[in-house]
Amino acid sequence: MNRRMILNTVGKMVLAEGLFLLLPASVALIYNEPSGLIGLLIAMAVALGLGGLMMTASKPKTDVIYAKEGFFIVSASWILLSLIGALPFVLSGEIPNYIDALFETVSGFTTTGASILTNVESMSHGLLFWRSFTHWIGGMGVLVFAMAILPNVSERSIHIMRAEMPGPVIGKLVPRIKDTAKILYLIYIVLTFVQIVFLLAGGMPLFDSVLHAFGTAGTGGFGVKADSITSYSPYLQWVITVFMLIFGINFNLYYLILIRRAKTAFKSRELWAYGIIVAAAILGVAVSIRSQYPTLEETVRLSAFQVSSIITTTGYATADFNLWPSFAKGILILLMFVGGCAGSTAGGFKVSRVVILFKQIRREVQHMLHPRSVKSLRFEGHSLEEQTIRGVLSYLSIYLVCFGAIFLVLSAESGFDFETTFTASFTCFNNVGPGLGGVGPASNFAAFSPLSKLVLSGGMLLGRLEIFPLIIFFSPSAWRK
Amino acid sequence: MNRRMILNTVGKMVLAEGLFLLLPASVALIYNEPSGLIGLLIAMAVALGLGGLMMTASKPKTDVIYAKEGFFIVSASWILLSLIGALPFVLSGEIPNYIDALFETVSGFTTTGASILTNVESMSHGLLFWRSFTHWIGGMGVLVFAMAILPNVSERSIHIMRAEMPGPVIGKLVPRIKDTAKILYLIYIVLTFVQIVFLLAGGMPLFDSVLHAFGTAGTGGFGVKADSITSYSPYLQWVITVFMLIFGINFNLYYLILIRRAKTAFKSRELWAYGIIVAAAILGVAVSIRSQYPTLEETVRLSAFQVSSIITTTGYATADFNLWPSFAKGILILLMFVGGCAGSTAGGFKVSRVVILFKQIRREVQHMLHPRSVKSLRFEGHSLEEQTIRGVLSYLSIYLVCFGAIFLVLSAESGFDFETTFTASFTCFNNVGPGLGGVGPASNFAAFSPLSKLVLSGGMLLGRLEIFPLIIFFSPSAWRK
Repeated sequence: MNRRMILNTVGKMVLAEGLFLLLPASVALIYNEPSGLIGLLIAMAVALGLGGLMMTASKPKTDVIYAKEGFFIVSASWILLSLIGALPFVLSGEIPNYIDALFETVSGFTTTGASILTNVESMSHGLLFWRSFTHWIGGMGVLVFAMAILPNVSERSIHIMRAEMPGPVIGKLVPRIKDTAKILYLIYIVLTFVQIVFLLAGGMPLFDSVLHAFGTAGTGGFGVKADSITSYSPYLQWVITVFMLIFGINFNLYYLILIRRAKTAFKSRELWAYGIIVAAAILGVAVSIRSQYPTLEETVRLSAFQVSSIITTTGYATADFNLWPSFAKGILILLMFVGGCAGSTAGGFKVSRVVILFKQIRREVQHMLHPRSVKSLRFEGHSLEEQTIRGVLSYLSIYLVCFGAIFLVLSAESGFDFETTFTASFTCFNNVGPGLGGVGPASNFAAFSPLSKLVLSGGMLLGRLEIFPLIIFFSPSAWRK
Repeated sequence: MNRRMILNTVGKMVLAEGLFLLLPASVALIYNEPSGLIGLLIAMAVALGLGGLMMTASKPKTDVIYAKEGFFIVSASWILLSLIGALPFVLSGEIPNYIDALFETVSGFTTTGASILTNVESMSHGLLFWRSFTHWIGGMGVLVFAMAILPNVSERSIHIMRAEMPGPVIGKLVPRIKDTAKILYLIYIVLTFVQIVFLLAGGMPLFDSVLHAFGTAGTGGFGVKADSITSYSPYLQWVITVFMLIFGINFNLYYLILIRRAKTAFKSRELWAYGIIVAAAILGVAVSIRSQYPTLEETVRLSAFQVSSIITTTGYATADFNLWPSFAKGILILLMFVGGCAGSTAGGFKVSRVVILFKQIRREVQHMLHPRSVKSLRFEGHSLEEQTIRGVLSYLSIYLVCFGAIFLVLSAESGFDFETTFTASFTCFNNVGPGLGGVGPASNFAAFSPLSKLVLSGGMLLGRLEIFPLIIFFSPSAWRK
């Protein structure tokens, strides 16, 4: 195991976080918020100091890394970045409890958007900015970002990219890994910028526009108002609906469009499945909630917003869907599982995996009828390797095991009903944000015990990194030579 | 497709049901219950008439059948037997609504034990006997029974056995399929008889003893009292606890003990896993409920009973676990999923599949660390075929898809909360019986709409037959040549 390389790379990531903190610090300076500014600057100093120390203390002799190093680097970076990222909230006194601050930060980086804040509107601008900015950083991935900007990126970094990016198959868009990372981030930045423009055009203040664009782009869900997006105009709600859906699509498809292969992009099976699921869910929810709203426009708008928000695991809300009929709630729960497309910023199980599951089920039926037939599965124009299929199926297994464990620990909390415990575990694990019952869109996670908050934070990280990297990082056998 | 053979075999099964109905009819005669007797006799006439007609109308030219015929025979038999088995309840007027009666019968045959009865104690003896007897018939399987007693059983019937018996791998105990079926049923009958003796020894009336033995042996859960097993003595509760656990064990192990290979039996990985899960769950539940009960004996007894009842998917209750702390309830929900051992009469996902899932997860982690390593999985002393592993993983996928679909339809019911809807779907699908909330052990399924009752009945059949046979039976492509 190349320990030096691991330490060195994680050091770089911590250093990068120090630089990222410059932005919220500037915001705190502009809005003249001394306590927020001091908190952000101290965290920045910690990050720059620690990151610099780690980097200099471990000059790697070789940049040869394998899958294991990739998992270690990604796990350690995400944990360390969360631990440091929580500091400004505590130091500024705006979230006095460290575990609360850690929950909020992990929720930010993992683009979950679950919050322990009981009064978001009392937060300072600098910290609100940092909170939403973690969504944007975590959405496309901090290590992918580093690959895009750092010089001398080894092709071996594909192991890091694979560990950080969600989805069953991670490939390179272009031969060089560094260029792939650059292209992804360029698309990400441009789309975020376009959304800001659309929001500004609808009369949303600049600060709100930037933060909501961060929250949408990372499919996170942190906002600036207690009622999330409810009090904004229908136009703004539609803009956010559309952009949530956009950020839930595999970014590879945008690259295909850029290089004028739009035809190939629109042939994507995952895109079609995503579109069909979204359309069917919007229809189903709209029918279910029709009687609760006066106009058809409002019904469709609320349905489309909530469906897009949940399937992309963003978590913004324009209605308290906790009060909707159980059919609408049932659809939303199933969407939490499905999640967005692979290679997007969305969480959940991923549409492509769902498609592969269905194809595998069909093949299994075929096999039962004709035991001697051997058929390979095709997906997106390629024949899937058996290992990929088994990987998807194994992921489903470990996904359920982890969910079961989180749910059981949360059950030990007294005072919560089944609906709250179940959906709190489910929404955090799938990086969605709001759940039902006591953690509905009008509620928050403040009432949970510190242990539950830590377990949910762990669940968010497991969900974002798709479990295996963390399992490997925390298994003693992997640490042995 | 050998249509004649399918029709002929299904006819035999219907005929067999007619003969089975003789027993409850005798009970009705003994207890002098004319309306019950007439209902049972008419159903008997229908079964004998229809079965005889089907058999004579379709003399098969050849007994060659394949997997598809096995799925068709099992699906058609179970559906037809349920449709006919519901008649006595309606004809006697004791369950006037046919859909209610069908729900109760499917719940019986699938050994679920979920009931729509609001007052079980007002039922006549004959019909109570029939209701519990369906558990016993469905537990080991009606087709396996037929194989044991019918002359000239073709070795091809392994396809029928595979389709009806639960578990990832179905093998023969002895070279001849007919002898295998005979051995299984002999063990089943002997164990049932032993339980009746133990219950009688504890002072339980004969009628109650026989019916509770049927309910335990089939891991069903239908009883004779509104409070299930609560009002029986601690001794009787312990007897039922032990026998529930016994009937949740793979019957192959009893055969191994019979042929003096007990050592091999006790080496079974599935048995160990089952034992460890049961012990851990009893401990967890006991800790969780300790403060609710005065003595340690009562705490452990109630914990052991409920845990055994739920993991074996029997569904008897000695406490209203709906009122237990959420940690205890959380454990029970996870146990509903796990279920008993393969090759037992229990439902659920099956312990062996859970073990294989964990092994596969570990292998997947290994594969991620060392992509070139190829390791085969070993289970119960054998190396597992890749197809078996993929089969288990595919079963998990389709299991979740079916559960999601049942849950969604049930959500459309107004007036039920998430806990009720979710656990009603879960408990029926896993053939357990009671759930939480509105379908807790002190409640019943009467309040659901006819559509929901039909969907839940379908869910019970899917769970009992392990999904694939019914999927194939209802897919139009399988009907084509």
